[in-house]
Amino acid sequence: MRATIIHGAGDVRIENVPDAEINEASDALVRVTRACICGSDLWPYRSMEPSETGERIGHEFIGVVEAVGGDVRTVKAGDLVVVPFAYSDGTCVFCHEGLQTSCIHGGFWARDGVDGGQGEAVRVPLADGTLVVLPVDEDDALMPSLLTLSDVMGTGHHAALAARVGPGKTVAVVGDGAVGLCGVIAAKRLGAEQIVILGRHPDRIALANEFGATDVVSERGDEAVERVRELTGGFGAHSVLECVGYEQSTVTALSIARPGGAVGRVGVPQQEEIPTTLTTFFDNVTIAGGPAPARAYIEELLPDVLEGRIEPGRVFDRVTNLDGVPDGYRAMNEREAIKVLIEF
Amino acid sequence: MRATIIHGAGDVRIENVPDAEINEASDALVRVTRACICGSDLWPYRSMEPSETGERIGHEFIGVVEAVGGDVRTVKAGDLVVVPFAYSDGTCVFCHEGLQTSCIHGGFWARDGVDGGQGEAVRVPLADGTLVVLPVDEDDALMPSLLTLSDVMGTGHHAALAARVGPGKTVAVVGDGAVGLCGVIAAKRLGAEQIVILGRHPDRIALANEFGATDVVSERGDEAVERVRELTGGFGAHSVLECVGYEQSTVTALSIARPGGAVGRVGVPQQEEIPTTLTTFFDNVTIAGGPAPARAYIEELLPDVLEGRIEPGRVFDRVTNLDGVPDGYRAMNEREAIKVLIEF
Repeated sequence: MRATIIHGAGDVRIENVPDAEINEASDALVRVTRACICGSDLWPYRSMEPSETGERIGHEFIGVVEAVGGDVRTVKAGDLVVVPFAYSDGTCVFCHEGLQTSCIHGGFWARDGVDGGQGEAVRVPLADGTLVVLPVDEDDALMPSLLTLSDVMGTGHHAALAARVGPGKTVAVVGDGAVGLCGVIAAKRLGAEQIVILGRHPDRIALANEFGATDVVSERGDEAVERVRELTGGFGAHSVLECVGYEQSTVTALSIARPGGAVGRVGVPQQEEIPTTLTTFFDNVTIAGGPAPARAYIEELLPDVLEGRIEPGRVFDRVTNLDGVPDGYRAMNEREAIKVLIEF
Repeated sequence: MRATIIHGAGDVRIENVPDAEINEASDALVRVTRACICGSDLWPYRSMEPSETGERIGHEFIGVVEAVGGDVRTVKAGDLVVVPFAYSDGTCVFCHEGLQTSCIHGGFWARDGVDGGQGEAVRVPLADGTLVVLPVDEDDALMPSLLTLSDVMGTGHHAALAARVGPGKTVAVVGDGAVGLCGVIAAKRLGAEQIVILGRHPDRIALANEFGATDVVSERGDEAVERVRELTGGFGAHSVLECVGYEQSTVTALSIARPGGAVGRVGVPQQEEIPTTLTTFFDNVTIAGGPAPARAYIEELLPDVLEGRIEPGRVFDRVTNLDGVPDGYRAMNEREAIKVLIEF
């Protein structure tokens, strides 16, 4: 079969790899029908050391179950399934707590001998805990929005929950990438009164406004902080969604939180320490978040997608096939595209 | 009148200062009957640059109202009052949210021309918002425990709330000082199932055990982390109370939190950045806390003190008078005393 392999910064190739197959009784074999490129895939695309063998990549996909192992009970051949960006057993203490990214037996795609999601097929470990059957056909028009449930919409939702968004709250979203845009959708959905998006790409800002953003701050650094304060009665936002992960964006996020407010971090941090000042402490600002337990949120978000109340699939502004994936990385890295959908 | 002045590291003196008096219509004049020395008073005691004029100090006290300004409605001359470590108007948006330490018009004792608490009398700004009348006589046997409502018990409670302590939770308390000990009381009071205290002073540990600690970890650094993991099923604690503020104690606190857990910080941080690793992010560990809105917690904690259900006053293991305050600082700094009560 064919799959995406990253060989180093700027070097993404489509190659032949061993066919995915059932190894364990708890596995499912899934033929991928839709996948996509994530902002977090751009981190290795920008910084990975050259590697002759390369590494599989991709962690967001929808597909059709082709076969299941003998222990699998909740999915069967022919089912269309959405696959969260972490696989999980669904039975351990962390899965029961809704934190499937910390599943004791779980893991992540494209690591430790597990297939990546940007390929023709994937062996899905722990299929019963991981997969969610979709009640639509594989070419349904809702496919882009359904695909976002594997990561980006769940991640925006996680940021909003971590930042304690709720009715009447003022919200600031740092970052106008696909996660930030889904953060706007999530904030609106959870009842936020004011949603300030920090970003400067006109096409993304236009989409943010359609998703429910009420204010735009295109400044950066101290000027952005000042502008958000002006927009929020001088105090900052109750809830801040950090959807980037850079040091500067984290400092900004922490600086625009109102006393007693919360910052929900979902951008993968590009530094070890949390860059902050004592103000975060003296203002009792909470720092929460991490990788989203996307699996936990699918049941909650799926009805809203199926009934058209949210349209996170609009973050995809380019569609390609598997051969077009390397150029998709380039386009996202150069900000030509917000997020690239891959059709198989 | 006489009050405590700190002139630099290791240099605390009792001096004559101008009499406290009513300046504003919202002021009360309070004759101090009990005060105490806080662990946070030891930070300047260890590091303050020498100063000829020196600075007032002290922020925990109980006293009798001697006079009130013309606008004061909720207290009157003769009332015995407990005074939280921040004064606050009780009417602003943050006071309404229960975050009186961020009161728009409030402030802290011994700063900006406001009296310190370790003196014979104090002008209390914003008396209506700040003071809470105590339904006992000024020499009641409960005085030590009532005094802790001004800071240390409220701070332990705040750490526990920030760390999301609740019934059935496993809790770790980093630090066996007076705040840590009150954190144990708070955790027990909120229904924690297991309370691990990290500390190594036998007298403090003995008290922690009486307050409800179920396990003791006297190791430090990586060994402490390993030991807490052993005691908590391998995962770490749901709720961690950081009651010290040093870099090492913060690293330990963040490292012993279970995935999805929370760290409540109340030790004043002695460094700007939050020293952590990406594990905090990948494990979805929440970092919360800050200065406790002690004022917000007095109504909740007072009945438990009055009815003897909690005895936080037991953290005082030395009593002195105003003249003994300099030696009280020395004793606390040398860990001869946990916390020193000052009787006037």
